[in-house]
Parts: sequence; structure tokens; C-alpha cells
Amino acid sequence: MDYKKLDEKDLEYIKQVINDDERILSGEHINEEYSHDELSGTQSYPDVVVKAANAQEISKIMSYAYEHTIPVTPRGAGTGLVGSSVAMEHGIMIDTSLMNQILELDEENLTVTVEPGVLLMELSAFVEEHDFFYPPDPGEKSATIGGNISTNAGGMRAVKYGVTRDYVRGLEVVLPNGSIVEFGGKIVKNSSGYAMKDLMVGSEGTLGIITKAVLKLLPLPKKAISLLIPFKDLNSAIQTVPEIIKSKSIPTAIEFMQREVIEDAEEYLGKKFPDHQADAYLLLKFDGNSAEEIEADYDKVAKLCLSQGALDVLISDTEERDESIWKARGAFLEAIKGSTTYMDEVDVVVPRNKISEMVEYMHNLHHEVDIRIKSFGHAGDGNLHAYILKDDLTDEQWEERMKMAMDKIYQKAAELNGQVSGEHGIGYAKKPYLNESLEEETMNIMRGIKAAFDPKNILNPHKVCQI
Amino acid sequence: MDYKKLDEKDLEYIKQVINDDERILSGEHINEEYSHDELSGTQSYPDVVVKAANAQEISKIMSYAYEHTIPVTPRGAGTGLVGSSVAMEHGIMIDTSLMNQILELDEENLTVTVEPGVLLMELSAFVEEHDFFYPPDPGEKSATIGGNISTNAGGMRAVKYGVTRDYVRGLEVVLPNGSIVEFGGKIVKNSSGYAMKDLMVGSEGTLGIITKAVLKLLPLPKKAISLLIPFKDLNSAIQTVPEIIKSKSIPTAIEFMQREVIEDAEEYLGKKFPDHQADAYLLLKFDGNSAEEIEADYDKVAKLCLSQGALDVLISDTEERDESIWKARGAFLEAIKGSTTYMDEVDVVVPRNKISEMVEYMHNLHHEVDIRIKSFGHAGDGNLHAYILKDDLTDEQWEERMKMAMDKIYQKAAELNGQVSGEHGIGYAKKPYLNESLEEETMNIMRGIKAAFDPKNILNPHKVCQI
Repeated sequence: MDYKKLDEKDLEYIKQVINDDERILSGEHINEEYSHDELSGTQSYPDVVVKAANAQEISKIMSYAYEHTIPVTPRGAGTGLVGSSVAMEHGIMIDTSLMNQILELDEENLTVTVEPGVLLMELSAFVEEHDFFYPPDPGEKSATIGGNISTNAGGMRAVKYGVTRDYVRGLEVVLPNGSIVEFGGKIVKNSSGYAMKDLMVGSEGTLGIITKAVLKLLPLPKKAISLLIPFKDLNSAIQTVPEIIKSKSIPTAIEFMQREVIEDAEEYLGKKFPDHQADAYLLLKFDGNSAEEIEADYDKVAKLCLSQGALDVLISDTEERDESIWKARGAFLEAIKGSTTYMDEVDVVVPRNKISEMVEYMHNLHHEVDIRIKSFGHAGDGNLHAYILKDDLTDEQWEERMKMAMDKIYQKAAELNGQVSGEHGIGYAKKPYLNESLEEETMNIMRGIKAAFDPKNILNPHKVCQI
Repeated sequence: MDYKKLDEKDLEYIKQVINDDERILSGEHINEEYSHDELSGTQSYPDVVVKAANAQEISKIMSYAYEHTIPVTPRGAGTGLVGSSVAMEHGIMIDTSLMNQILELDEENLTVTVEPGVLLMELSAFVEEHDFFYPPDPGEKSATIGGNISTNAGGMRAVKYGVTRDYVRGLEVVLPNGSIVEFGGKIVKNSSGYAMKDLMVGSEGTLGIITKAVLKLLPLPKKAISLLIPFKDLNSAIQTVPEIIKSKSIPTAIEFMQREVIEDAEEYLGKKFPDHQADAYLLLKFDGNSAEEIEADYDKVAKLCLSQGALDVLISDTEERDESIWKARGAFLEAIKGSTTYMDEVDVVVPRNKISEMVEYMHNLHHEVDIRIKSFGHAGDGNLHAYILKDDLTDEQWEERMKMAMDKIYQKAAELNGQVSGEHGIGYAKKPYLNESLEEETMNIMRGIKAAFDPKNILNPHKVCQI
């Protein structure tokens, strides 16, 4: 594709639309952070960064870019892990982080309407203040909700509550040609043509730029309780998970964690984890409207865990203790990052009854590939986060071994009927693995869908299904 | 589009693939029912009906049809209301109703895998026998699950549990070119490329033919209770609904019903409805794992309804009584159909706090257009089913007034930020209304998506977004 290189005239147009020089960064004024995201190793600078204030501005710029075939890359807080928000073809970056208003809480429709730049932590704090609940709970609380929607982020409560897509009712979107359209709305049911709203969710900024979202809320559960369950080793912990699912109790979350990752978190946070007796833990949460309602459920699961070899069941029902546990869990990514020189990630998802096989495989992979791998994740929904660590490897060693480890992990996931990404997306970094994992027919249709939205291929090119 | 007319040679090929003459109907052997669906007034015969036994047969026939540009129309039980399964361009009809096996119940992943021809009532009976729960609960229990997926059917429990799309984890699909692909799987989270599974759901047989579905199950709630709440008139009943939603209790279902529709049902079923004191009712259901858990919720709602002018609150906690109420509710469509000479339907969905305005508008519409309209529906999720009745009108009167009434209803729904269809789909009959309701840009993208799946436009042409 021949893109037009951004020139002075284009910049003039942008300045005229934005009419606020502080919201435009170009050339050397572009901060280094705009050239990459949180992890993927993908690096490329945009020619200009526009901090958009509203959909109209984005529409005007998109429309101009469409006319002149200038590439555009949308970006939220830049917390992605696979390079989705990196401007591979340079051009214009549209940063939506200033569009951070919570526009409306609609108690009669149980919805909240937000701009895309609202941070996940701001959203959850706001709705909880009003006794509502936004269930998706990805570890990275400083991600924008626009970013969460773009990767269909899942998070820790997916076991019981599902993923971001399940909580998006409607979207306002600027299309690649600059038109502003609405998909869905405040309605609960919709069978009016193809599922445009659902398709936008998880499309990683390649089909349109989200400028507003109507999100579904639930009443805030009145009670929650966490169980920290130590096991003698990882295997016995993980093998208990399908038994928990089978027991027909529905925890809000089932996470697994290992001693070594907990230690990283302790160091990172400068704070001790409340238990030290075991090598591996399951961390479960239960929520509901009364202590009794939850108790019946967690009592059953606690007994089940003990019968499966758990060393103990620690009940956390104070906010303080709860925080010390979940804060450690929330810090894992940063803590692991801090424990090595460089790393890359894998976000495979497998059917829940295969989780033990997948974790065991990753745990033993260092026998085959001489590289350190740390993992944690959402045992309850089959979504594992594994981090491959560079440590003191040379660049060549790293490239070779990291690739070898990834190939093996993705291959194993495919064998277990899993998929490449549970919630981090494909972006730029995971394209080869998606390409290997899906049928050629499916990849072609995805490319056709991209072309239907973006015939000139100017919006976030080279991502997801594109070469 | 120039389609090839099915000839003897094509029929020979089909016979060779199917190798069972009893599963092929052609020419005058095609039963009249294959020329239409349950309601839409759309009529067109296929040239041949193939009762497929498996995905391989469908793949071979699709692949042949693709090569020769012969139109293909998929069909389940034919219970649709908008003409989605009518063979507008004749050609080959693929009837999946013989593919009716429940293939696997996977208790570790909480999924059931089914062929598309399994009937909704068979599915729910099967999973409930195993103490599981498939929440989507459309009124038409003899629809196939393939049909339910194709329209993203919602049903009565959407208030609490969501719609069909929320319970489809994976699909096996025969694409228009004959390839067999899989979208999604048993996995709980998925951010691996565009949302193909979600896009297939609700695409009304225009993007591919569903040959297998992996459905999500929940543990069966142990207790359920219904409340039948009489109100002095429709308005006071409906106006209570947003208050119920706002109260943060979550009923499984909130239906509204009027005296006149109940009377139709009594006649149709030959069975008395358990209450006769009022003109309008709300029918609520609550479910949960214990009587106490439900009680707190319904007690709050019962008091709220009384404070809003309910005449009474009748608690139905015996199976017998429950059945007599819900059976009446389930018979509404057939009962209304039996009360007139001919009818057509509207399936608008509006935000829940607009339901009262929408119902009132429809209720008073006969002052503007001299035609009988009966309605009932899912008050709790904003989805209304209104039936426009022909009675003794001449064909011209009917056409004119029906069209006028529909135009007005769809316009009102649009004013209230609603959509054309909550769950019945667009098919052939509702295309003009979808076209009016959505932005031209959106319609164009939908056509582009259709072309990405079906470049030769042979699969179920003239439906949803097509001219």
C-alpha cells in the first residue's frame, strides 16, 4: 500500500481542526512512549500525535486521512502487550486518553455511558460508589475502557461474569472514512442485522475508532469472600480446578499462583504475602447478596479442595487481608517484568479441563528450551499468562530460544483445542501465531471484513489478520 | 445476479452425494411448508430440498453450488417469522432438521455440543435431566437450536441471563464455498482475531451454514418462583417495570400480558387462566439456589408493585400453577394467530425505560390506523411483540393499513432509540425497516461483510442487508 507521507500541509489541517497546539505533538516533540506499548517489542513512531477531545475532531481527521491515504493509529493508555497501538506505518496517532468523561449513569436501564479514555479503575470506582458493578476485571487497572473493548479484555471475574464484550451494549464509532456511526445502544436484545457491536469489540482498533461506549452494569454484590488455598505443588493445585467447575458452584474467580511469582510480587510491592507455607496456591473469590448465600458455595469448594490434597483453606473476609492478597495478584505482571532484563508474553486460552495439561507443559518447558518461564493466570477460565524471560541471554540467544518456546507453547495450546489469545489480542506481535492457528479460509474472511470497513487500509494497518 | 437454474445434472450430483432418495425432495414432491415460514407472507419454492445428515454432505453440496452459482437456502424447523428460511431465488434448500443429535455433555467445561437440528425443547429437557441449565428461552420451543442461533433468539429469561449469543461458545460452519471451519470452541475467553463466532450468531443463514454448536451451560438453579401481578390497566403495569429494574433485584423474566390476549390463549388452550380480576398483568419469575435467596428478592419487588398500584400479588410456587400461567404465556403467538384471518408481526426493542411509552403508543395506534393490534412481550428487556391483525379487511385495506401501522411503530421505536428487531431478525420481510433504521454506512459495511463470506452471493440471497 502506498501511503502518503505526512507533510506540513497535512499538519496545518490537523492544527486547524484541533485548534489547540498543546494537543498536537509532532516530530521530536513526540514522547518516546508513543513509539511502543507495554511489552511487545514492536517499535515505530507516528509522525504526529493528536490528543483528541471529541468524536467530531476524530471524524474530521479520519475523513482527511481517508481522502489523502494517510495511516491512522488509535491509542488509549498504551498498556497493550501485543503492539496493537503502535503506528507501524507512522502517520497520525489519535490518542483518546483526554476523552475521559463518564457521561451518564442510567439507573433505569442499568447502563453507564463513557468516553473511551476513562480508565478501568475510574470506571469501577464510579459505579461502585453508586452501588453498581462493572464485572470485567483485567489486572491492568490503568488501561482505558476503549482499550479494554478493543482487546475484549477478560480479567479475573470471567469465570462467573464473562468478558468485556458481554458488557458492551452500544458503541459510537468513527469509521475509517470519517463517518460517525452507532452500533447497538441501550437495548438489551438486538437482532437487527449483523452483530456490528460484537465485531467492533476485540477488533484492536483496526475497524473503527471507539468514541463512546454504553456499558451494561449489574447491581453491586453485597458480599464477597476470598479463599486462599495452599497446595503442596502446582499440579495438585491446577488439577483441582476442573473438579471445582464440575461441582457446579460458580466462583467469581479462580486464579493460580506459584511461590516464585509471589516472591517477585513481595519484592515489587515491598510487602509480605499473608501465607508462606506452600509452593502453589489457588485463589478463589465468591460473591453474592448475603453471607449465607456465599457460604454454602465456598464451604462446598473448600471441602472439595481439602479432599484433593489442599494443605489448608484460608478464608479472607476482611478488606485488609483481601487487599494484601489481590494486590499481590494484581502486581504479578509488573513484578515479573522487574525480575528480568526483558520479557515477552503468551496469553493462550485452552478449554478449562485442559488447563492442568497446559500449565504442566509450560512448567516443564525449560527442560526442552533453556529459558526461564514464569506463569500465572486465570485457571478458572483456561486463560494462562506466561512470561518468557530474557535474563542474561544475548540478543541472539533470546530471539532463538524465545521463538522456540513460543512455537512450542502455541502448538501445545492448539493441540488442546485452545486459541492464541484469551484477552491480550493479536496486534502486531502475535500475527504469525494467529495465522498458523486459524484456517486459511477464516483468515481470508477476516481480511475481507477489514476491507469492508477500511477499503483503503488506513486504520491501524498490519494488525490482527493483515500481513 | 445470474444464478444457474437447477437442472437434471445438478440433481444427479446431489443424489450421488446424499445416496438416499428419501432425503431428497424435488419438483412436486416438495411439501408446501418448504415454500414459507411461520408468518412473514414471503413465499417461494426451492427447486430441491436436501435433508442433510452431516456437515460433509452440506460441504459437498455447497462447494458444488459455489462452483455452479446455484443459490442455497438453509432451513431448520421453519418457525421463523420474517422469511429468513424462504428460498427467494429457488435453487437448493438444505434442511438440517435431521441433524438432531446431542453429541456431548462436557461437565468439566460446562458445555453441550449439539447438531443444529436439535429442538430447543429437546435441548432444555436433556440438560435439565443432567442438572444443567440452558438459559435462552424463546417462546417457540419447537424451533431448532440452529435457528435460534441464526436469529440470536432472546426469549423470556434475557433480563437476567442474556440472549442466545451469550451461550454460544463455538460453531462449526460450512462456508458458502463449501469449506468447513470452526469459530470459537470450548474456550471461555477468546481475543484471537475478529469475533467470527459472534458475527455468525444472528446472521440468519446468510454467512454460512451452522453444522455444530458448542453451547455454554449453567448449573440448574434449584428453586424458581413466579409472581403473577394484576394491575387495573396496562399503563400502571408497564410503568412499574423501570422501577423494578431500578430496585436492583434481578428477576429472571418480566413479561406483560393483557386480558384480551389471555382470553385468546384460554380459548386456544381450552384451559382457564388462574386469575381473571384484571385487565393487565405483569408476570415475573425469580430463580436461585435456595428459597431464602429468592424470597428476599421477590418480597422487595412484590411490595414495590403494590406501592405502584398492583391489585394483588399472586405467588405461584407449585409446578401445576406455574405451568398453567407459563403455558398461557407460551401460547400467545398461536392464540392470536387463531383469533384472526391473517397477521403480521413487529418485534421492536427499545431501552427498558421507554417500554411504557412504546406500549402505550401501540395500544393507542388504532385511533390513527383502523386496524387491530395485539401485543405482549418481554417488558423486562424492552422487547415487544405486536401483531397486526387482518380480520375481515380486504387485501388492499390490509396491505395499506398494515404498512401504515408498521411504519408508525418502527418510527416510534427509532425515536425512542430502539431497533427494528429484538430477536426475530430481519430476514426478507423487515429489510425496508432495517434499511431505514440504520445508517447507510452501516448497511454498506454489512454488505461488505456478506461479500467477504459469500463473494458469489449464493447463500440465502436477498436477506438481512441485501437488496
